[in-house]
Amino acid sequence: MAESMQGLKRTHRCGELSAANVGETVTIMGWVQKNRNKGGLVFVDVRDRSGIIQVVFDEGSVDAALIEKAAKLRSEYVVAVVGKVAKRSGAVNENIATGEIEIIPEELRVLSESETPPFQIEENSKTKEEVRLKYRYLDLRRPDMQRNLMMRSKVATLARQFMANEGFLEIETPVLIGSTPEGARDYLVPSRVHQGHFYALPQSPQLFKQLLMCSGYDRYFQIAKCFRDEDLRADRQPEFTQMDMELSFVDVDDVIDVNERFLAMLFKEVLGVEVPLPIPRMTWQEAMDRYGSDKPDTRFGMELVNVTDVVKDSEFVVFKGAIENGGTVRGINAKGQGGMARKKIDKLVDYAKDYGAKGLAYIAIHEDGTVKSSFAKFMTEDEQKNLIQAMDGENGDLLLFAADKNKVVWDVLGALRLELARQMDLLDKNEYKFMWITEFPLLEWSEEQNRFTAMHHPFTMPMEEDLQYIDSDPGRVRAKAYDITLNGNEIGGGSVRIFNPEIQSKMFEVLGFTPEQAQEQFGFLLTAFKYGVPPHAGLAYGLDRLVMLMAKQDSIRDVIAFPKVKDASDLMTEAPTKVDQKQLDELGLAVVAEEE
Amino acid sequence: MAESMQGLKRTHRCGELSAANVGETVTIMGWVQKNRNKGGLVFVDVRDRSGIIQVVFDEGSVDAALIEKAAKLRSEYVVAVVGKVAKRSGAVNENIATGEIEIIPEELRVLSESETPPFQIEENSKTKEEVRLKYRYLDLRRPDMQRNLMMRSKVATLARQFMANEGFLEIETPVLIGSTPEGARDYLVPSRVHQGHFYALPQSPQLFKQLLMCSGYDRYFQIAKCFRDEDLRADRQPEFTQMDMELSFVDVDDVIDVNERFLAMLFKEVLGVEVPLPIPRMTWQEAMDRYGSDKPDTRFGMELVNVTDVVKDSEFVVFKGAIENGGTVRGINAKGQGGMARKKIDKLVDYAKDYGAKGLAYIAIHEDGTVKSSFAKFMTEDEQKNLIQAMDGENGDLLLFAADKNKVVWDVLGALRLELARQMDLLDKNEYKFMWITEFPLLEWSEEQNRFTAMHHPFTMPMEEDLQYIDSDPGRVRAKAYDITLNGNEIGGGSVRIFNPEIQSKMFEVLGFTPEQAQEQFGFLLTAFKYGVPPHAGLAYGLDRLVMLMAKQDSIRDVIAFPKVKDASDLMTEAPTKVDQKQLDELGLAVVAEEE
Repeated sequence: MAESMQGLKRTHRCGELSAANVGETVTIMGWVQKNRNKGGLVFVDVRDRSGIIQVVFDEGSVDAALIEKAAKLRSEYVVAVVGKVAKRSGAVNENIATGEIEIIPEELRVLSESETPPFQIEENSKTKEEVRLKYRYLDLRRPDMQRNLMMRSKVATLARQFMANEGFLEIETPVLIGSTPEGARDYLVPSRVHQGHFYALPQSPQLFKQLLMCSGYDRYFQIAKCFRDEDLRADRQPEFTQMDMELSFVDVDDVIDVNERFLAMLFKEVLGVEVPLPIPRMTWQEAMDRYGSDKPDTRFGMELVNVTDVVKDSEFVVFKGAIENGGTVRGINAKGQGGMARKKIDKLVDYAKDYGAKGLAYIAIHEDGTVKSSFAKFMTEDEQKNLIQAMDGENGDLLLFAADKNKVVWDVLGALRLELARQMDLLDKNEYKFMWITEFPLLEWSEEQNRFTAMHHPFTMPMEEDLQYIDSDPGRVRAKAYDITLNGNEIGGGSVRIFNPEIQSKMFEVLGFTPEQAQEQFGFLLTAFKYGVPPHAGLAYGLDRLVMLMAKQDSIRDVIAFPKVKDASDLMTEAPTKVDQKQLDELGLAVVAEEE
Repeated sequence: MAESMQGLKRTHRCGELSAANVGETVTIMGWVQKNRNKGGLVFVDVRDRSGIIQVVFDEGSVDAALIEKAAKLRSEYVVAVVGKVAKRSGAVNENIATGEIEIIPEELRVLSESETPPFQIEENSKTKEEVRLKYRYLDLRRPDMQRNLMMRSKVATLARQFMANEGFLEIETPVLIGSTPEGARDYLVPSRVHQGHFYALPQSPQLFKQLLMCSGYDRYFQIAKCFRDEDLRADRQPEFTQMDMELSFVDVDDVIDVNERFLAMLFKEVLGVEVPLPIPRMTWQEAMDRYGSDKPDTRFGMELVNVTDVVKDSEFVVFKGAIENGGTVRGINAKGQGGMARKKIDKLVDYAKDYGAKGLAYIAIHEDGTVKSSFAKFMTEDEQKNLIQAMDGENGDLLLFAADKNKVVWDVLGALRLELARQMDLLDKNEYKFMWITEFPLLEWSEEQNRFTAMHHPFTMPMEEDLQYIDSDPGRVRAKAYDITLNGNEIGGGSVRIFNPEIQSKMFEVLGFTPEQAQEQFGFLLTAFKYGVPPHAGLAYGLDRLVMLMAKQDSIRDVIAFPKVKDASDLMTEAPTKVDQKQLDELGLAVVAEEE
């Protein structure tokens, strides 16, 4: 019994109506949110992406057949209503924007009926995420999801306007590209024309945007889909979106300048939040020392304190051993947590172990000044006093210590600091603290591969003053790389690029590429660089995460229309699926190992 | 000997300077276009994406070391120049925007050297396309390529602004989706987590945008990469870009309205061209009858004339046979071509045969009124006279006839009409003639598959008045589909969608799907449609082709930064390539047929 909308034209979206429209005849179209029958009156709430409006079918003003039709409406029917806007006869609903008004209907058409949906279309659904994702088209009707995707669209629109005004050109780079061994695992696409050959999907447009600089495009940007076939962690997607840019004839400060103005514009326009500029900067070394993280959450303190010197003569074997092995002892002070129950402390110890700690030492200072410590018996009273003093310990504080190699200590205390902040409710989603992290190490040692790998990527420019160490002490070389962080998340990162072919060759050498391998993988880039390359630098944002933070969501799945789940499958379409043998034959492929 | 740009900051792009800057000290950075040494003076033209500026190293004003350095510059070196803008001492160069001025240098730095490039960086390069594509990063330096990509960026920017202002939300749909058998061949992406299973790359966001309407997003758009693994014709790419949109609560006229205003805005802003609105509309039937094409080039006439009735009694067996087999005889009149040499006419006959004609009949009317015809001997004088009259034949005209099934006649004469227009130079790239084509057939018969296939796609709404024929005479059913054409190119197309589950089921039935197959392939869409679907319609542009026409180019490769060639390979990166055995093992795949 679906009716046609022929002859009707929508005049307003539901949420666009207000008291200013009283007396006007309007046509709205949308979904039935609910339908109440109350003493001969039928109240129908009609919903679209802009909001909800109440339509009142009243015996006094509407004919009986229409009331009867309205009474039969069910949730999620799609209707068109022609009627007159009136002041509410009943109580004003303060909860909705159109709460002062209602529509007195003249015509009602049912454009589409609906079965009872598997869950209700409402904010803050308690429905399990698997069900939401299976019926994503219904989940996406929920007002909070609609707000998220509308915000995402607005962010993209504003970003593009800003970039265009700043002289950036949006240039599309290819999605079917060659596979490169460096970096994460590629998604492959078999070629049918060239059987046995494969394209890869891009992990980023990195090489192409550098080539565009080489080609003189000067300022490039793109909101680009990128792909990584990694085992998915909670907050990763096999396909994700980068807002990517590259600039010619610039150095670090130029990139930072344009991006600070961009972020300030974005947060002002979308959230009404003023971002004070300049955004503070911190070197990687300082960030690790103070926060145990290269993406420090600076909404709260609880900074790491290096107490190696204070405890270096203690007999506590954990501290002693770590220091002797070239490590350090550091602590954090969880203010006011001195009375934490033993069980809860044990959980923190377990948490620390997940991050690589062998254990966690603590001193709990009770409100009455008494001290309970996991390692008191190995310390003199003076040593303990000095340690508490170094940690700025006061009555009621809980001091937690890790002793190990620097990397482990940072990881453990960095993670613990965040966990405590969550427990202590120190994280305000309405507060936005940005921080630039600079001077990253150029390389990091990979135990797995037994070689240095690029911390950002192989095209990152070393700092001029550190170039002298590239052969003798590669780990010491810092890079002209920078990340922009927000509330403990890396939302973007980039670097000045190598534009000198000799430095690029040296970089490949340090990374363990033979000249032949470098040529085979990146030959076109190396060749391009022989024909006049401008100095250039760039940055890319993880758009999903940025929007997630702006929308105050906990998962990027809530700001992606059709996300995949942890096993990289789509619960709605059931992709990936089996394909016809004919399709495989055309590609010259056979399946040799198959999931049951 | 590359120098650093440290301490310098570019103040202007080259082409941004004008007589208004005379007397200012500026810093420019760019590529050496050329370098002439003339009587102690060195003239260096520096190029960036905005244009070219001349730098004059003159003994009188510049010190000798600087002149010496300038003299050593070679084409494509990247330089920074600090200097004062002055009126040209020599002749004004009318050919370039900065032709009135020059820079008197104070400092010159060589930021990057260049080997001699394999071809010169210049407009209208005569270099073979294979070489241009192998060194695409150099080809993209050429000013015409830069103008093309800058225009493309501008088109995208304007499009997004327009769409945002019209209430469209840009929503990203997934790239890793499920494979569907309908339509062209999918590119597949093997899953590693689910071995033996595959994603497909989208041929369009069709299903997802319909789901978004089902989810209440009301107006969606996206500039989206799409993929088709087809044997490439001249003007196809394995990955191409659609500007895609979908609207809820609309009918044909609403879609046409917003798109006409969009196109008028775009052509005005980018080209300064006024598009008269409304854009004329023509039914598919009329387009075929008058132009032999569903994308008629209406910049010129030479329309098809149906002369079946005129010749139906002639003894010419070709005409007679065609008519008896249910076909028609139609002709076109190539005005002023009556004197065409026999050899050239023979070529037209060959051309017609390429389009399926068995032959081509002609009447050449010479300037003196004498007539030469390939089939005169089979016609009476009266019959010939009537035929010439029906064709509006005058002295000097060439009349060409095809007789066959309608489809063949249309194809042949439609193609011939275009070929003659090219020969007669009737196609003006500065003229833009738009036309909507409406009321397409819903279905077309596939000889290959021995069944009806969807002319647009299986979700296209039949015209209400034709629904009655869907079982008895499916070929007669017209669709609520529309294409927008420009100068003989389809630049976009779309339709009103089926939003009624019963009609959708019927459509799948007509297409030969069993209910099980329909459920397996499109189950999520069919399920979605059970929960309240708004009437909706959409359209998608082929952005590559649209920009190609706006940029007056002959190939979409000239408006794509990194295109692929006919065998779907990339001549620069050499993708697709072989991959490591390890990568295949992870995917559970083996190569069983391999290209040498």
